[in-house]
Amino acid sequence: MHEFQLINRYFSKLSYKNQGSLNLNDDVFFDKSKKLVVSIDTYIEGIHFINFKKPELVIKKIIRSSISDIICKGVKPKYYFISGSGNNKSFSSNNLKKISKSLKQEQKKYDINLCGGDTVYSNKLSFTITSIGFSQKIIFRNKAKLNDDIYVTGNLGDSFTGLNILKKKIYVNNSLKKYFEKKYYLPNLHLKLSNSLLNFANTSIDISDGLIADLEKLINKQKFSYKLNLANIPISKNLKKLLIQKKLNKKSYISQGDDYQILFTANSSKSRIINKTAKSLGIKISKIGKICSNLQKSQIIDQKGNKIAVKTKGYSHRF
Amino acid sequence: MHEFQLINRYFSKLSYKNQGSLNLNDDVFFDKSKKLVVSIDTYIEGIHFINFKKPELVIKKIIRSSISDIICKGVKPKYYFISGSGNNKSFSSNNLKKISKSLKQEQKKYDINLCGGDTVYSNKLSFTITSIGFSQKIIFRNKAKLNDDIYVTGNLGDSFTGLNILKKKIYVNNSLKKYFEKKYYLPNLHLKLSNSLLNFANTSIDISDGLIADLEKLINKQKFSYKLNLANIPISKNLKKLLIQKKLNKKSYISQGDDYQILFTANSSKSRIINKTAKSLGIKISKIGKICSNLQKSQIIDQKGNKIAVKTKGYSHRF
Repeated sequence: MHEFQLINRYFSKLSYKNQGSLNLNDDVFFDKSKKLVVSIDTYIEGIHFINFKKPELVIKKIIRSSISDIICKGVKPKYYFISGSGNNKSFSSNNLKKISKSLKQEQKKYDINLCGGDTVYSNKLSFTITSIGFSQKIIFRNKAKLNDDIYVTGNLGDSFTGLNILKKKIYVNNSLKKYFEKKYYLPNLHLKLSNSLLNFANTSIDISDGLIADLEKLINKQKFSYKLNLANIPISKNLKKLLIQKKLNKKSYISQGDDYQILFTANSSKSRIINKTAKSLGIKISKIGKICSNLQKSQIIDQKGNKIAVKTKGYSHRF
Repeated sequence: MHEFQLINRYFSKLSYKNQGSLNLNDDVFFDKSKKLVVSIDTYIEGIHFINFKKPELVIKKIIRSSISDIICKGVKPKYYFISGSGNNKSFSSNNLKKISKSLKQEQKKYDINLCGGDTVYSNKLSFTITSIGFSQKIIFRNKAKLNDDIYVTGNLGDSFTGLNILKKKIYVNNSLKKYFEKKYYLPNLHLKLSNSLLNFANTSIDISDGLIADLEKLINKQKFSYKLNLANIPISKNLKKLLIQKKLNKKSYISQGDDYQILFTANSSKSRIINKTAKSLGIKISKIGKICSNLQKSQIIDQKGNKIAVKTKGYSHRF
């Protein structure tokens, strides 16, 4: 059973009914009266990260993945908690030293603080990260308006390319290898954009499962469709070169997850302020499509103007 | 390496330095300015619960174990989040139905609300529970005073007996089997006592790892010892009978963990109000010993008046 159905059938009725919680249908929990924002995610070896050969990178990736949920809602994360399950090899002195060093660097980079956690013995390595922020308001899911422009930050597809290089499915030279692997392990979160987002975004989500999967999640309770322009979906120069060189299809690279870019919609009147904000913060923000009425089907317009019907991509593992 | 050493060496320096957090040396995190109290624990099949044959009981046990951390600090839990890792068998429709029903009952019993979580696929079944409460103040660890009386709620040892029956290490008749197994799966938390505790407890902890292990944790940064009177350590009539019948030693049954009773210390002047509170709430509270200067060694006085030196018991898996 798909996770959404599972949640709907068994857990929605249990959820806290307040203005913020949206019956578990969001990536974060928000208690407006307490100004509290909470995100919880579990990361398992072999599913959410390949292996633990580079603990210093894995730990950074999962911390960023966790606080990304909060940042994309317009909120600054403040606290994080780690619960780690693993064996003595995973949690050797040497690995703990690396983990501790990485956490210290992330704390400085994103101004967050370790506040507790748990360590338990298990042969299956996994981490659960709880991140907490405080805010008067957040940007919810399912608040898109008809004719909203759809925007995305940064570039898509680099992380997926990095994963394929790590999995030895793609071979590239050392400098590209380094570039893409870094993009896979160390997504660059736009903490500075977070607060400004509240000024123009109607609805937002971070891209963890893939552009299409997360766009569909973003409006899953709304009767809308969307139109995306493939040409406008931003990719890096390095990925562009690679796609040409290896004769790969752009469409199959831009919606595969782990990008941790922010996807949001905004009224067309906000276009100017969005461009201004992007420029002043030095963050790339691209207009990639439009929210449409559900009288038409969701579609992607390719570089030649052909309409491609959307098949849902990405995987989903969150509620 | 012992978990405390591990935390001290690698993580204490990362922890948030405020009045509440105590450098990760407590079972909960407290942010006084936000009035926020957070507890996180991971429960793994085969370690924290035997198996998942009775999901309806396992899920209640882990929820109670999690909110117990908050209740014993004088705080009412309000929210909980579940992150579950498991396979399709563990999360079958039938099991999810049972889990959902149990959660609903716990929500009603303890006035708590499900606010989110995560489900991920794994062959190793585990749950991470994050519980949150709000309070102006909490009862910290390491705030015992010299000559404080040591108190404990309820009875100790029933849960461990239940575990031994489940593991087929002890055989008893059906009615006792039912009694002890229920004590193992469904520890009775003293939510009503929580608020009153703030009036008289100097320091407190819930007994999850065992009486001695948790008492040692309770004062682990203080230069104190303790004296316990074995005769005063409360056990149920059923356990008393069983010990006599099977010629078992009381001492080896009262400090084995999973009791989820509240252990606290209080000035001797509070004795009257504690007895009054116990009576009015219908909660058994027993005075079991005293906090002493560290000029003497910690000891247990047995029923014959013999002094037994303390060997640390229980296991520990939290920070």
